[in-house]
Amino acid sequence: MATLEQRIQAIEDRHALQDLAATYFVAIDDLANADDILACFTQDAVFDMSAIGYPAFAGIDALREFFTGVVNGLEYSAHYGSNFKIDSLEQDRASVRIHAVGMGLPHGGERSKVYVQYHLTYQRIDGQWKISAIRGTPLMTGD
Amino acid sequence: MATLEQRIQAIEDRHALQDLAATYFVAIDDLANADDILACFTQDAVFDMSAIGYPAFAGIDALREFFTGVVNGLEYSAHYGSNFKIDSLEQDRASVRIHAVGMGLPHGGERSKVYVQYHLTYQRIDGQWKISAIRGTPLMTGD
Amino acid sequence: MATLEQRIQAIEDRHALQDLAATYFVAIDDLANADDILACFTQDAVFDMSAIGYPAFAGIDALREFFTGVVNGLEYSAHYGSNFKIDSLEQDRASVRIHAVGMGLPHGGERSKVYVQYHLTYQRIDGQWKISAIRGTPLMTGD
Repeated sequence: MATLEQRIQAIEDRHALQDLAATYFVAIDDLANADDILACFTQDAVFDMSAIGYPAFAGIDALREFFTGVVNGLEYSAHYGSNFKIDSLEQDRASVRIHAVGMGLPHGGERSKVYVQYHLTYQRIDGQWKISAIRGTPLMTGD
Repeated sequence: MATLEQRIQAIEDRHALQDLAATYFVAIDDLANADDILACFTQDAVFDMSAIGYPAFAGIDALREFFTGVVNGLEYSAHYGSNFKIDSLEQDRASVRIHAVGMGLPHGGERSKVYVQYHLTYQRIDGQWKISAIRGTPLMTGD
Repeated sequence: MATLEQRIQAIEDRHALQDLAATYFVAIDDLANADDILACFTQDAVFDMSAIGYPAFAGIDALREFFTGVVNGLEYSAHYGSNFKIDSLEQDRASVRIHAVGMGLPHGGERSKVYVQYHLTYQRIDGQWKISAIRGTPLMTGD
Protein backbone atom coordinates (compact mmCIF):
# COMPACT_ATOMS: atom_id res chain seq x y z
CA MET A 1 0.00 0.00 0.00
CA ALA A 2 1.56 3.26 -1.14
CA THR A 3 1.90 6.11 1.35
CA LEU A 4 0.50 9.55 0.56
CA GLU A 5 4.05 10.77 0.02
CA GLN A 6 4.74 7.99 -2.49
CA ARG A 7 1.52 8.76 -4.35
CA ILE A 8 2.38 12.45 -4.56
CA GLN A 9 5.89 11.56 -5.73
CA ALA A 10 4.45 9.40 -8.54
CA ILE A 11 2.25 12.30 -9.65
CA GLU A 12 5.20 14.70 -9.58
CA ASP A 13 7.28 12.23 -11.58
CA ARG A 14 4.56 11.99 -14.20
CA HIS A 15 4.45 15.76 -14.47
CA ALA A 16 8.22 15.99 -14.68
CA LEU A 17 8.20 13.60 -17.65
CA GLN A 18 5.44 15.58 -19.32
CA ASP A 19 7.18 18.91 -18.66
CA LEU A 20 10.41 17.62 -20.13
CA ALA A 21 8.66 16.68 -23.39
CA ALA A 22 6.92 20.07 -23.54
CA THR A 23 10.18 21.85 -22.75
CA TYR A 24 11.91 19.94 -25.55
CA PHE A 25 9.26 20.79 -28.16
CA VAL A 26 9.07 24.44 -27.13
CA ALA A 27 12.88 24.76 -27.03
CA ILE A 28 13.18 23.44 -30.59
CA ASP A 29 10.43 25.71 -31.84
CA ASP A 30 12.00 28.75 -30.14
CA LEU A 31 15.02 28.27 -32.47
CA ALA A 32 16.92 30.39 -29.95
CA ASN A 33 19.91 28.23 -29.03
CA ALA A 34 20.94 24.59 -28.84
CA ASP A 35 21.64 24.70 -25.08
CA ASP A 36 17.97 24.86 -24.05
CA ILE A 37 17.32 21.78 -26.16
CA LEU A 38 20.38 19.88 -24.96
CA ALA A 39 19.49 20.50 -21.30
CA CYS A 40 16.63 18.02 -21.78
CA PHE A 41 18.96 15.10 -22.57
CA THR A 42 21.41 12.76 -20.84
CA GLN A 43 25.06 12.86 -21.93
CA ASP A 44 24.72 9.56 -23.81
CA ALA A 45 21.28 10.28 -25.28
CA VAL A 46 20.15 8.50 -28.43
CA PHE A 47 18.35 10.45 -31.15
CA ASP A 48 16.95 8.22 -33.87
CA MET A 49 14.62 9.60 -36.53
CA SER A 50 15.82 7.19 -39.22
CA ALA A 51 12.34 5.63 -39.52
CA ILE A 52 10.91 8.99 -40.60
CA GLY A 53 13.76 9.91 -42.95
CA TYR A 54 15.90 11.97 -40.58
CA PRO A 55 19.30 11.18 -39.00
CA ALA A 56 20.18 8.88 -36.11
CA PHE A 57 23.09 9.39 -33.72
CA ALA A 58 24.07 9.26 -30.04
CA GLY A 59 25.89 11.34 -27.47
CA ILE A 60 25.54 14.95 -26.44
CA ASP A 61 28.20 16.18 -28.89
CA ALA A 62 26.35 14.70 -31.85
CA LEU A 63 23.09 16.16 -30.51
CA ARG A 64 24.74 19.57 -30.15
CA GLU A 65 25.94 19.49 -33.74
CA PHE A 66 22.53 18.45 -35.02
CA PHE A 67 20.47 20.95 -33.02
CA THR A 68 22.90 23.78 -33.76
CA GLY A 69 22.16 23.06 -37.40
CA VAL A 70 18.43 23.06 -36.71
CA VAL A 71 18.54 26.36 -34.83
CA ASN A 72 20.64 28.01 -37.55
CA GLY A 73 18.91 26.42 -40.52
CA LEU A 74 15.23 26.94 -39.84
CA GLU A 75 13.08 30.01 -40.19
CA TYR A 76 10.14 28.35 -38.43
CA SER A 77 9.77 25.15 -36.46
CA ALA A 78 6.50 23.82 -35.01
CA HIS A 79 5.88 20.73 -32.88
CA TYR A 80 2.52 19.70 -31.50
CA GLY A 81 2.78 16.87 -28.96
CA SER A 82 -0.34 15.01 -27.84
CA ASN A 83 -1.54 11.67 -26.40
CA PHE A 84 1.09 11.51 -23.66
CA LYS A 85 1.05 7.76 -22.86
CA ILE A 86 3.21 6.35 -20.09
CA ASP A 87 4.21 2.80 -21.03
CA SER A 88 6.31 2.31 -17.89
CA LEU A 89 7.35 4.36 -14.88
CA GLU A 90 9.85 2.82 -12.49
CA GLN A 91 12.06 4.34 -9.82
CA ASP A 92 14.60 5.96 -12.16
CA ARG A 93 13.46 4.94 -15.63
CA ALA A 94 10.40 5.64 -17.70
CA SER A 95 9.08 5.00 -21.17
CA VAL A 96 6.52 7.25 -22.88
CA ARG A 97 4.88 7.60 -26.28
CA ILE A 98 3.75 10.91 -27.73
CA HIS A 99 1.97 11.56 -31.02
CA ALA A 100 3.24 14.71 -32.64
CA VAL A 101 2.95 16.75 -35.78
CA GLY A 102 6.35 18.20 -36.60
CA MET A 103 6.96 20.97 -39.13
CA GLY A 104 10.02 22.84 -40.28
CA LEU A 105 10.59 25.67 -42.73
CA PRO A 106 14.27 26.10 -43.75
CA HIS A 107 15.50 29.59 -44.64
CA GLY A 108 14.56 30.06 -48.29
CA GLY A 109 13.25 26.49 -48.48
CA GLU A 110 9.98 24.58 -48.41
CA ARG A 111 8.02 23.45 -45.39
CA SER A 112 8.26 19.83 -44.32
CA LYS A 113 5.59 18.10 -42.22
CA VAL A 114 5.74 14.73 -40.46
CA TYR A 115 3.15 12.78 -38.49
CA VAL A 116 5.24 10.93 -35.95
CA GLN A 117 5.00 8.72 -32.90
CA TYR A 118 7.82 9.59 -30.53
CA HIS A 119 9.15 6.87 -28.23
CA LEU A 120 10.86 8.55 -25.31
CA THR A 121 13.03 6.87 -22.73
CA TYR A 122 13.79 8.78 -19.55
CA GLN A 123 16.38 8.35 -16.82
CA ARG A 124 16.54 10.05 -13.45
CA ILE A 125 20.12 11.09 -12.80
CA ASP A 126 21.03 12.81 -9.52
CA GLY A 127 17.33 13.31 -8.87
CA GLN A 128 16.71 14.98 -12.22
CA TRP A 129 14.71 13.40 -15.05
CA LYS A 130 16.32 13.59 -18.49
CA ILE A 131 15.52 12.14 -21.91
CA SER A 132 17.94 9.27 -22.62
CA ALA A 133 16.47 8.30 -26.00
CA ILE A 134 14.00 9.68 -28.51
CA ARG A 135 12.94 7.62 -31.50
CA GLY A 136 10.41 8.51 -34.18
CA THR A 137 8.21 6.17 -36.18
CA PRO A 138 5.75 7.28 -38.88
CA LEU A 139 2.05 7.62 -38.01
CA MET A 140 0.77 8.85 -41.36
CA THR A 141 1.98 9.85 -44.81
CA GLY A 142 1.26 12.99 -46.81
CA ASP A 143 0.94 16.63 -45.83
CA MET B 1 -13.14 20.06 3.48
CA ALA B 2 -11.41 17.34 1.50
CA THR B 3 -8.66 15.32 3.18
CA LEU B 4 -5.20 15.05 1.63
CA GLU B 5 -6.04 11.46 0.65
CA GLN B 6 -9.22 12.57 -1.11
CA ARG B 7 -7.36 15.30 -2.97
CA ILE B 8 -4.70 12.84 -4.12
CA GLN B 9 -7.42 10.39 -5.17
CA ALA B 10 -9.10 13.09 -7.28
CA ILE B 11 -5.77 13.82 -9.01
CA GLU B 12 -5.18 10.11 -9.67
CA ASP B 13 -8.71 9.80 -11.06
CA ARG B 14 -8.09 12.68 -13.43
CA HIS B 15 -4.89 11.06 -14.63
CA ALA B 16 -6.61 7.68 -15.04
CA LEU B 17 -9.22 9.31 -17.32
CA GLN B 18 -6.51 11.04 -19.32
CA ASP B 19 -4.42 7.87 -19.59
CA LEU B 20 -7.41 5.91 -20.82
CA ALA B 21 -7.98 8.37 -23.65
CA ALA B 22 -4.28 8.32 -24.58
CA THR B 23 -4.23 4.52 -24.41
CA TYR B 24 -7.25 4.37 -26.70
CA PHE B 25 -5.75 6.69 -29.32
CA VAL B 26 -2.36 4.96 -29.25
CA ALA B 27 -3.96 1.48 -29.39
CA ILE B 28 -5.93 2.42 -32.51
CA ASP B 29 -2.90 3.94 -34.19
CA ASP B 30 -0.77 0.88 -33.37
CA LEU B 31 -3.13 -1.14 -35.63
CA ALA B 32 -1.78 -4.20 -33.78
CA ASN B 33 -4.91 -5.93 -32.48
CA ALA B 34 -8.46 -5.12 -31.42
CA ASP B 35 -7.98 -6.38 -27.85
CA ASP B 36 -5.81 -3.44 -26.74
CA ILE B 37 -8.51 -1.09 -27.98
CA LEU B 38 -11.40 -3.04 -26.46
CA ALA B 39 -9.70 -3.13 -23.05
CA CYS B 40 -10.47 0.59 -22.77
CA PHE B 41 -14.25 0.07 -22.89
CA THR B 42 -17.09 -1.23 -20.74
CA GLN B 43 -19.03 -4.27 -21.98
CA ASP B 44 -22.03 -2.12 -22.94
CA ALA B 45 -20.02 0.76 -24.40
CA VAL B 46 -21.60 3.08 -26.95
CA PHE B 47 -19.59 4.15 -30.00
CA ASP B 48 -21.31 6.86 -32.01
CA MET B 49 -19.52 8.64 -34.83
CA SER B 50 -22.70 9.18 -36.87
CA ALA B 51 -22.34 12.97 -36.64
CA ILE B 52 -19.01 12.79 -38.47
CA GLY B 53 -20.11 10.27 -41.09
CA TYR B 54 -18.97 7.06 -39.40
CA PRO B 55 -21.00 4.22 -37.81
CA ALA B 56 -22.82 4.08 -34.48
CA PHE B 57 -23.35 0.94 -32.40
CA ALA B 58 -23.21 -0.42 -28.87
CA GLY B 59 -21.85 -3.41 -26.98
CA ILE B 60 -18.42 -4.95 -26.87
CA ASP B 61 -19.18 -7.46 -29.67
CA ALA B 62 -20.09 -4.69 -32.08
CA LEU B 63 -16.98 -2.76 -31.03
CA ARG B 64 -14.86 -5.86 -31.60
CA GLU B 65 -16.21 -6.29 -35.11
CA PHE B 66 -15.66 -2.63 -35.92
CA PHE B 67 -12.13 -2.34 -34.53
CA THR B 68 -11.07 -5.66 -36.06
CA GLY B 69 -12.07 -4.11 -39.39
CA VAL B 70 -10.08 -0.97 -38.56
CA VAL B 71 -6.96 -2.93 -37.57
CA ASN B 72 -7.13 -5.09 -40.70
CA GLY B 73 -8.23 -2.38 -43.10
CA LEU B 74 -5.83 0.47 -42.42
CA GLU B 75 -2.23 0.92 -43.43
CA TYR B 76 -1.82 3.99 -41.19
CA SER B 77 -3.95 5.50 -38.47
CA ALA B 78 -3.18 8.74 -36.60
CA HIS B 79 -5.07 10.39 -33.75
CA TYR B 80 -3.99 13.58 -32.01
CA GLY B 81 -6.00 14.27 -28.85
CA SER B 82 -5.81 17.69 -27.18
CA ASN B 83 -7.75 20.06 -24.90
CA PHE B 84 -8.65 17.43 -22.31
CA LYS B 85 -11.64 19.11 -20.59
CA ILE B 86 -13.35 17.44 -17.64
CA ASP B 87 -17.03 18.40 -17.71
CA SER B 88 -17.88 16.33 -14.62
CA LEU B 89 -16.05 13.96 -12.28
CA GLU B 90 -18.12 12.13 -9.68
CA GLN B 91 -17.39 9.07 -7.57
CA ASP B 92 -17.73 6.48 -10.36
CA ARG B 93 -18.71 8.50 -13.41
CA ALA B 94 -17.05 11.17 -15.47
CA SER B 95 -17.61 13.16 -18.60
CA VAL B 96 -14.79 14.61 -20.70
CA ARG B 97 -14.35 16.39 -24.00
CA ILE B 98 -11.28 16.05 -26.21
CA HIS B 99 -10.50 17.81 -29.48
CA ALA B 100 -8.79 15.47 -31.90
CA VAL B 101 -7.54 15.28 -35.43
CA GLY B 102 -8.17 11.77 -36.74
CA MET B 103 -6.64 10.36 -39.90
CA GLY B 104 -6.79 6.99 -41.61
CA LEU B 105 -5.17 5.55 -44.71
CA PRO B 106 -6.83 2.32 -45.95
CA HIS B 107 -4.67 -0.25 -47.73
CA GLY B 108 -4.52 0.91 -51.33
CA GLY B 109 -6.93 3.76 -50.59
CA GLU B 110 -6.92 7.49 -49.90
CA ARG B 111 -6.30 9.25 -46.63
CA SER B 112 -9.27 10.58 -44.69
CA LYS B 113 -9.00 13.38 -42.10
CA VAL B 114 -11.57 14.54 -39.55
CA TYR B 115 -11.55 17.41 -37.07
CA VAL B 116 -13.65 16.06 -34.23
CA GLN B 117 -14.79 16.81 -30.72
CA TYR B 118 -14.97 13.59 -28.74
CA HIS B 119 -17.46 13.36 -25.89
CA LEU B 120 -16.32 10.61 -23.56
CA THR B 121 -18.32 9.10 -20.73
CA TYR B 122 -16.44 7.05 -18.17
CA GLN B 123 -17.54 4.57 -15.53
CA ARG B 124 -15.50 3.10 -12.70
CA ILE B 125 -16.27 -0.61 -12.48
CA ASP B 126 -14.61 -2.74 -9.79
CA GLY B 127 -12.21 0.13 -9.12
CA GLN B 128 -11.18 0.42 -12.77
CA TRP B 129 -12.09 3.35 -15.01
CA LYS B 130 -13.41 2.42 -18.46
CA ILE B 131 -14.92 4.35 -21.37
CA SER B 132 -18.68 3.71 -21.44
CA ALA B 133 -19.46 5.97 -24.40
CA ILE B 134 -17.57 7.86 -27.06
CA ARG B 135 -19.36 10.23 -29.40
CA GLY B 136 -17.91 12.43 -32.12
CA THR B 137 -19.17 15.76 -33.38
CA PRO B 138 -17.55 17.81 -36.15
CA LEU B 139 -15.25 20.71 -35.25
CA MET B 140 -14.24 21.75 -38.75
CA THR B 141 -14.69 20.79 -42.38
CA GLY B 142 -12.08 20.22 -45.07
CA ASP B 143 -8.64 18.67 -45.05
CA MET C 1 11.02 21.46 2.38
CA ALA C 2 7.47 21.52 1.07
CA THR C 3 4.73 19.83 3.10
CA LEU C 4 2.47 17.22 1.51
CA GLU C 5 -0.33 19.78 1.50
CA GLN C 6 1.84 22.30 -0.34
CA ARG C 7 2.84 19.70 -2.90
CA ILE C 8 -0.79 18.73 -3.50
CA GLN C 9 -1.69 22.41 -3.81
CA ALA C 10 0.99 22.92 -6.46
CA ILE C 11 -0.39 19.97 -8.44
CA GLU C 12 -3.93 21.31 -8.16
CA ASP C 13 -2.74 24.74 -9.30
CA ARG C 14 -1.08 23.22 -12.33
CA HIS C 15 -4.28 21.40 -13.21
CA ALA C 16 -6.35 24.54 -12.71
CA LEU C 17 -4.14 26.40 -15.21
CA GLN C 18 -4.42 23.55 -17.69
CA ASP C 19 -8.19 23.28 -17.22
CA LEU C 20 -8.61 26.99 -17.81
CA ALA C 21 -6.80 26.76 -21.14
CA ALA C 22 -8.87 23.73 -22.18
CA THR C 23 -12.07 25.45 -21.06
CA TYR C 24 -11.16 28.51 -23.12
CA PHE C 25 -10.46 26.54 -26.30
CA VAL C 26 -13.58 24.39 -25.93
CA ALA C 27 -15.76 27.44 -25.13
CA ILE C 28 -14.62 29.21 -28.30
CA ASP C 29 -15.16 26.13 -30.43
CA ASP C 30 -18.64 25.58 -28.96
CA LEU C 31 -19.63 28.94 -30.54
CA ALA C 32 -22.51 28.91 -28.03
CA ASN C 33 -22.16 32.23 -26.22
CA ALA C 34 -19.52 34.77 -25.25
CA ASP C 35 -20.13 34.37 -21.50
CA ASP C 36 -18.47 30.94 -21.25
CA ILE C 37 -15.40 32.37 -22.94
CA LEU C 38 -15.32 35.57 -20.86
CA ALA C 39 -15.57 33.59 -17.60
CA CYS C 40 -11.97 32.47 -18.23
CA PHE C 41 -10.58 36.02 -18.06
CA THR C 42 -9.82 38.75 -15.54
CA GLN C 43 -11.68 42.05 -15.90
CA ASP C 44 -8.58 43.79 -17.27
CA ALA C 45 -7.43 40.92 -19.46
CA VAL C 46 -5.19 41.60 -22.45
CA PHE C 47 -5.89 39.84 -25.75
CA ASP C 48 -3.15 40.38 -28.31
CA MET C 49 -3.08 38.43 -31.56
CA SER C 50 -1.47 41.26 -33.54
CA ALA C 51 1.63 39.13 -34.28
CA ILE C 52 -0.54 36.61 -36.14
CA GLY C 53 -2.65 39.16 -37.99
CA TYR C 54 -5.60 39.41 -35.60
CA PRO C 55 -6.66 42.25 -33.28
CA ALA C 56 -5.23 43.36 -29.94
CA PHE C 57 -7.21 44.99 -27.14
CA ALA C 58 -7.72 44.94 -23.37
CA GLY C 59 -10.55 44.88 -20.85
CA ILE C 60 -13.56 42.60 -20.50
CA ASP C 61 -15.84 44.89 -22.54
CA ALA C 62 -13.53 44.75 -25.53
CA LEU C 63 -13.22 40.98 -25.12
CA ARG C 64 -17.01 40.69 -24.99
CA GLU C 65 -17.40 42.63 -28.21
CA PHE C 66 -14.75 40.56 -29.95
CA PHE C 67 -15.97 37.14 -28.81
CA THR C 68 -19.60 38.03 -29.50
CA GLY C 69 -18.46 38.68 -33.06
CA VAL C 70 -16.63 35.35 -33.13
CA VAL C 71 -19.63 33.41 -31.81
CA ASN C 72 -21.99 35.07 -34.29
CA GLY C 73 -19.65 35.14 -37.25
CA LEU C 74 -18.27 31.59 -37.40
CA GLU C 75 -19.88 28.41 -38.63
CA TYR C 76 -17.04 26.27 -37.26
CA SER C 77 -14.16 26.98 -34.92
CA ALA C 78 -11.44 24.50 -33.96
CA HIS C 79 -8.54 24.89 -31.54
CA TYR C 80 -6.03 22.19 -30.70
CA GLY C 81 -3.84 23.10 -27.74
CA SER C 82 -0.71 21.08 -26.98
CA ASN C 83 2.73 21.28 -25.28
CA PHE C 84 1.45 22.89 -22.09
CA LYS C 85 4.69 24.41 -20.74
CA ILE C 86 4.73 26.21 -17.40
CA ASP C 87 7.35 28.96 -17.55
CA SER C 88 6.61 30.17 -14.01
CA LEU C 89 4.18 29.34 -11.22
CA GLU C 90 4.18 31.58 -8.19
CA GLN C 91 1.66 32.07 -5.40
CA ASP C 92 -0.92 34.03 -7.42
CA ARG C 93 0.68 34.40 -10.84
CA ALA C 94 1.68 32.01 -13.55
CA SER C 95 3.03 32.07 -17.07
CA VAL C 96 2.42 29.28 -19.58
CA ARG C 97 3.07 28.58 -23.25
CA ILE C 98 0.83 26.43 -25.41
CA HIS C 99 1.28 25.45 -29.05
CA ALA C 100 -2.03 25.44 -30.87
CA VAL C 101 -3.52 25.02 -34.29
CA GLY C 102 -6.44 27.41 -34.64
CA MET C 103 -9.02 27.26 -37.41
CA GLY C 104 -12.13 29.24 -38.21
CA LEU C 105 -14.78 29.01 -40.92
CA PRO C 106 -16.91 32.15 -41.24
CA HIS C 107 -20.51 31.79 -42.39
CA GLY C 108 -20.31 31.67 -46.19
CA GLY C 109 -16.56 32.30 -46.07
CA GLU C 110 -13.29 30.43 -46.34
CA ARG C 111 -11.45 28.54 -43.65
CA SER C 112 -8.47 30.19 -41.99
CA LYS C 113 -5.73 28.24 -40.20
CA VAL C 114 -2.97 29.50 -37.93
CA TYR C 115 -0.06 27.74 -36.24
CA VAL C 116 0.41 29.74 -33.07
CA GLN C 117 2.31 29.82 -29.81
CA TYR C 118 0.07 31.19 -27.09
CA HIS C 119 1.67 33.01 -24.18
CA LEU C 120 -0.77 32.94 -21.27
CA THR C 121 -0.48 34.93 -18.09
CA TYR C 122 -2.64 33.86 -15.17
CA GLN C 123 -3.66 35.56 -11.96
CA ARG C 124 -5.34 34.06 -8.92
CA ILE C 125 -8.06 36.43 -7.74
CA ASP C 126 -10.14 35.55 -4.67
CA GLY C 127 -8.77 32.02 -4.84
CA GLN C 128 -9.77 31.56 -8.49
CA TRP C 129 -7.29 31.32 -11.36
CA LYS C 130 -8.11 33.47 -14.41
CA ILE C 131 -6.31 34.33 -17.64
CA SER C 132 -5.00 37.90 -17.41
CA ALA C 133 -3.30 37.97 -20.80
CA ILE C 134 -3.17 35.87 -23.92
CA ARG C 135 -0.74 36.68 -26.71
CA GLY C 136 -0.14 34.80 -29.93
CA THR C 137 3.07 34.54 -31.95
CA PRO C 138 3.45 32.62 -35.22
CA LEU C 139 4.95 29.10 -35.18
CA MET C 140 4.63 28.31 -38.86
CA THR C 141 3.30 29.71 -42.11
CA GLY C 142 1.00 28.14 -44.68
CA ASP C 143 -2.02 25.87 -44.37
